[in-house]
This record gives sequence, structure tokens and C-alpha cells, in this order.
Amino acid sequence: MNDTVRLDLEAARRLVAAALERHRTSAANAACVADALVAAERDGQKGHGLSRVPSYTAQSASGKVDGFAEPAVVTDATAAVRVDAKNGFAFPAVDLAIEHLEQKCVNSGMAAAALFRSHHFGQAGYHVERLALRGMVALAFANSPKAIAPWGGRQGIFGTNPIAFAAPRDGNAPLLVDLSLSKVARGKILVSAESGEAIPEDWAFDADGNPTADPKRALAGTMAPMGEAKGAALVLMVEVLAAALTGANFGFEASSFFDAQGEPPGVGQLLVAFNPAVFSGGAFADRLESLIDAMLGQPGVRLPGSRRLDARARAAADGLMLPRSLYEKITALGA
Amino acid sequence: MNDTVRLDLEAARRLVAAALERHRTSAANAACVADALVAAERDGQKGHGLSRVPSYTAQSASGKVDGFAEPAVVTDATAAVRVDAKNGFAFPAVDLAIEHLEQKCVNSGMAAAALFRSHHFGQAGYHVERLALRGMVALAFANSPKAIAPWGGRQGIFGTNPIAFAAPRDGNAPLLVDLSLSKVARGKILVSAESGEAIPEDWAFDADGNPTADPKRALAGTMAPMGEAKGAALVLMVEVLAAALTGANFGFEASSFFDAQGEPPGVGQLLVAFNPAVFSGGAFADRLESLIDAMLGQPGVRLPGSRRLDARARAAADGLMLPRSLYEKITALGA
Repeated sequence: MNDTVRLDLEAARRLVAAALERHRTSAANAACVADALVAAERDGQKGHGLSRVPSYTAQSASGKVDGFAEPAVVTDATAAVRVDAKNGFAFPAVDLAIEHLEQKCVNSGMAAAALFRSHHFGQAGYHVERLALRGMVALAFANSPKAIAPWGGRQGIFGTNPIAFAAPRDGNAPLLVDLSLSKVARGKILVSAESGEAIPEDWAFDADGNPTADPKRALAGTMAPMGEAKGAALVLMVEVLAAALTGANFGFEASSFFDAQGEPPGVGQLLVAFNPAVFSGGAFADRLESLIDAMLGQPGVRLPGSRRLDARARAAADGLMLPRSLYEKITALGA
Repeated sequence: MNDTVRLDLEAARRLVAAALERHRTSAANAACVADALVAAERDGQKGHGLSRVPSYTAQSASGKVDGFAEPAVVTDATAAVRVDAKNGFAFPAVDLAIEHLEQKCVNSGMAAAALFRSHHFGQAGYHVERLALRGMVALAFANSPKAIAPWGGRQGIFGTNPIAFAAPRDGNAPLLVDLSLSKVARGKILVSAESGEAIPEDWAFDADGNPTADPKRALAGTMAPMGEAKGAALVLMVEVLAAALTGANFGFEASSFFDAQGEPPGVGQLLVAFNPAVFSGGAFADRLESLIDAMLGQPGVRLPGSRRLDARARAAADGLMLPRSLYEKITALGA
């Protein structure tokens, strides 16, 4: 029995875009979202990939996401831009921000973009990598619906709040760091809950704030941050940068990224871009290669992001392998 | 036996400045360094406080640190400034950067400052807090001499690389996050090595890259990053931001911050400052207080930085309590 379907990247994009266009989404927005989801799938980031299509289309169909939204710059300062995503999909707003950041970095040395009334922005590394491909060193911070409690507390307030970072390299893919600040992805706990297996006690807390090995209790509680109290402080930092600084909703105010119920999540993202030539006096490219050489000179060391590049190379050669059930679901959504 | 000395803050500053001025340091630089070290001592950050005076004076005496250096802006773009610390103490260069950042944030919405040929910049939170007291949301990244290996490797390449973050609050001290990216401070391992006690196996690696409970083997090896592989990726990110982007020395190239031997360490720092009104459409102050209210509404939750503020309040009321041996050593250095 063949339970996977092989699909080339362009076919995958068309498939996703068709599903979105059938669900109250403009052709331009559908194409932009399809690019991002296919890039995540290609990079092995399946949680941000084509598995999202059914929930995305449900949200655009219900109006929780405005598929026709045209993101707009509402503040344009010399080194700062504020983008209203207008409760549409996040990706068109990120694309608009990237255009502005590039121009501002050329003119001013650096800039940042604040996005609000935004939604799930997927693989955070996708955005910083695109900035790095245009020559910028880039940071991204995002918040997401509540999953992590403040350190010492019991109730979730913060999202799993990714940090992503990319730096351009001559003749190589950008150096990429992309991590969420939970110790493990919630998806891992979902898998254990389905199989009935215990989870390590340091992955999550139950609703009383105690460590738990029971995945069902964990799902009713909160996710452990990576790095314990220090990690929890970073989660707070990202929440402030991505939501307070942008004027967006906090994790505890945001509705789910997955279901079609309720108000739009209205989360925020902050992108920061640096022109490395300006800050380093021209030394950046050589300095970065010296560091990478020192790292790779040690046996057993790989650069962060290597698995993603491996997956990307496999997808370029062999196409995407989709579960047949998902392929059929997306096909039906676009029919 | 009275083995501590009580000292008010102003007396402590005079004591430190006198020691520095006696060791080839200008009066202006001595006063600036004294402010920073006393602030760290006051805040309970003793590792960045007056304990540094003997090694600082040894370094200015030997010329490893140029105590007469006058930091200079070598690149001044609209939203970017590059400051050459000229192998002097870091603090005068940070002060210069802060002046430029404030002006640029007013004019452009945000800015960043790259420092190179720099030195130990102490309590990272001190710098971002001062930016926040001037109304900016601020980030700081610094590198330091090698202590942490790349994930999967054995040899130290990166420093313990602090990240600090501060945000202004109306009527309250700024919200402050300040953490080094090692799991624990190296000082804790030094204490265990002296007492002969075992350390937890997740604090450090031996010279072969294996976890070790033996503090002496740990000191010959590398420090564990907080948050395992994710933390190691953040350490790399900070090394790139603080050193590659600024054109400074990496941790594996930098000499010690403690002894007077060898070339200057020449490390780097990156300060980033945001004008919150511009990015948030004026919503920032209210948004931040909503988040803090939600956090403090949970029993058992304290804001990061609370212990520091407690220590500061005690020092304001009671003065600093210095070990008599340290007091006498600094006094002798200034005589």
C-alpha cells in the first residue's frame, strides 16, 4: 500500500494555493502563504508545513483570518516600520516588512519592523534566511498562544516564542539559528498522549505547576521552557519584543492558530536587520568564516540549521513526500 | 572579629577610582569604571563588582588595558554607530555608545552600537537598564573569552556570552533580563573545586567532551550552555552578533579578562535600542503593564531582576558590605 504521495515543489505550491483560493483568500495572498508552507515542508519543518493547510483554510473560511487582507505600513520612520497585518495571514505582512527593511538597512545601517494583528508566521528561520540572502544579519522574535507559565507560576501566559537568527555567507547558505523557547515541541507530547507513553519529567508541568510524566496532564498544564529559569526569562523577553513593543496581543490574549473559532489571534512579530558592512567596518564576512572554520575544525560539530539544509537538498532532488491522507485532504479543499 | 567593612556608595566609588588612577588610568575613565563596578556590587552582582579592581589595575598597570584610551566613533550612520574602545576599559566606550543611541532613537526610531577592541563590560544589565531609564527598549549582546564548546565538540570557542534586555516602566524600575548563556557561573565550579565537592553532571564537560561531576576536570574542560543544544545555538548567535558583526575578537581569540598577560582581549559588544512609541503606535507602556499584571497575578511569580533590586535597596539603606581583605587590597592599590 502506497500511503505517501511524491510531489514536486511547484506542484505542492499550486495545490496549497488552490485550497486557499477556494476559501476566501486572494490569489496573491494564497501564493505567498503557499510559498511559506512549502518552504517549511521542504526544510523538514512539517509542523509549519502543509499540515497547516486544513486549519488555515478553516480560518479563512470562517473569517477568523481575513484572506483578502492587504497588510499596510502604518508607521514609517527612518529605521523603523510598523506593519498592520490586518488579521490576515502573517506571510504577506512579513514580505512587506522585508522590502522595507532592506531599503532602510542600505540607507541607515539597520532597521526593525513591528508586525501586529498578525497570525502564525510559521518557520521563523524562513524570514531571517530571506533577509540574510539579501545581505542582512537578521533577528526575528514572535509570540504565540499561551503555552508557558511565568517562572514559579502555574498558568500559561507566554507562547513558545521563537527566536531566529541568520547571517549571510559568501557562497554558502546563510548561517541559521531557529528555535522555540519551549524545551520540546508540544507535538512531541501529543504523540506520547496518543500512544500512552510517559514523557520525561522535565518537558512539561501539570495544571498545578508540578513536573509531570503524564502527557495528558502535561497537555492540561504548561510547557517547560528550555533552560529553566533563564529560559523563562528569555520567553518573557521575546513576549515583550514581539507583542508589547509591536502593540500586539499577548499569548494569554491570543486565540488558537489551529481552530476557526473566536476572534483573530492578533499576535505580533519583530524583525531586526543589520547591514553587516556598516557595523563591522567591512570585516564581517571574513570574521564569520573564521568562526565557522573554528567550529567545523572540531570532530562531531555541525552548524545549526544543517538538518534543514539536508532536508532541502533531498526535497530538491526527490520532491516532497506527503502522507496520502493529507494530500487528498488538501486536494479536496482546492477542488 | 569583624571581617567585613561597611562602605557607602560614594565612598566605594572614590576608593575604586583612586586605585585605578594610581594605575595608569585617566581620572575620567577611573570614575566611569568605578560607577560601573560599584553599581554591580550594589546590585549583588559581586562577580562584576569590586572583586574586579585588583585584576583591572593589574591590567592597566601592565598596559594590557589602556587606561587612558578615549573611545571614538569610527562609523556614524543614521541608525548605526561603531565605537572603537581602543583596548581601554569597556565602560567609557559603552557610555559613548549610549549617548549616540539615545539621539538616534529619537530621530530614527531605533539604532544599534557595535563596540570592538573592547574588554569586560561587567553587568550587562547595567547598560540596558540605563538605556531603559532614558525611555528605550534595549538589548545587549557580548562575547567573552572561550568557555563553551560548539555543540558536539570538545574545545571551548565561545564565551559565556550574556544577553541582557530592559524595558522602561512608568513609575517603576525597568523590567530587566540579564543572563549569561552558560548553565551556571564558572565561579560556582571554582568554589566546588576549592571545597572538593562534586558538581552536578550537567554543569560542565571534561576535556574529552564528557559530562563530569569532578570540578577540577570541569575547569580543564568547558562549561555547559543553558538549554543544551538550543542554548548552544544561542551562544553562537551571540558570538556572531557581538564579535563578527562588530569586527571584534572571538572568544577563542581573546585573552583573559582577569590576568595582566598577553595581548588585549579585544572582544566586542552590540547594543540595540528601540523607541517603543514608534514601534507600538503609543501602546507600549500600557501593554507592558498588562503583561506584568498577568504575571504577578499568579502566586509565586517574581519578575526577573527582583533580587537585584532588593540588593540595591539594601545597599542604599545600609551601604555595601565588603570583605575586609578586599577593602584593604583596594585601599592599598589607591594609596
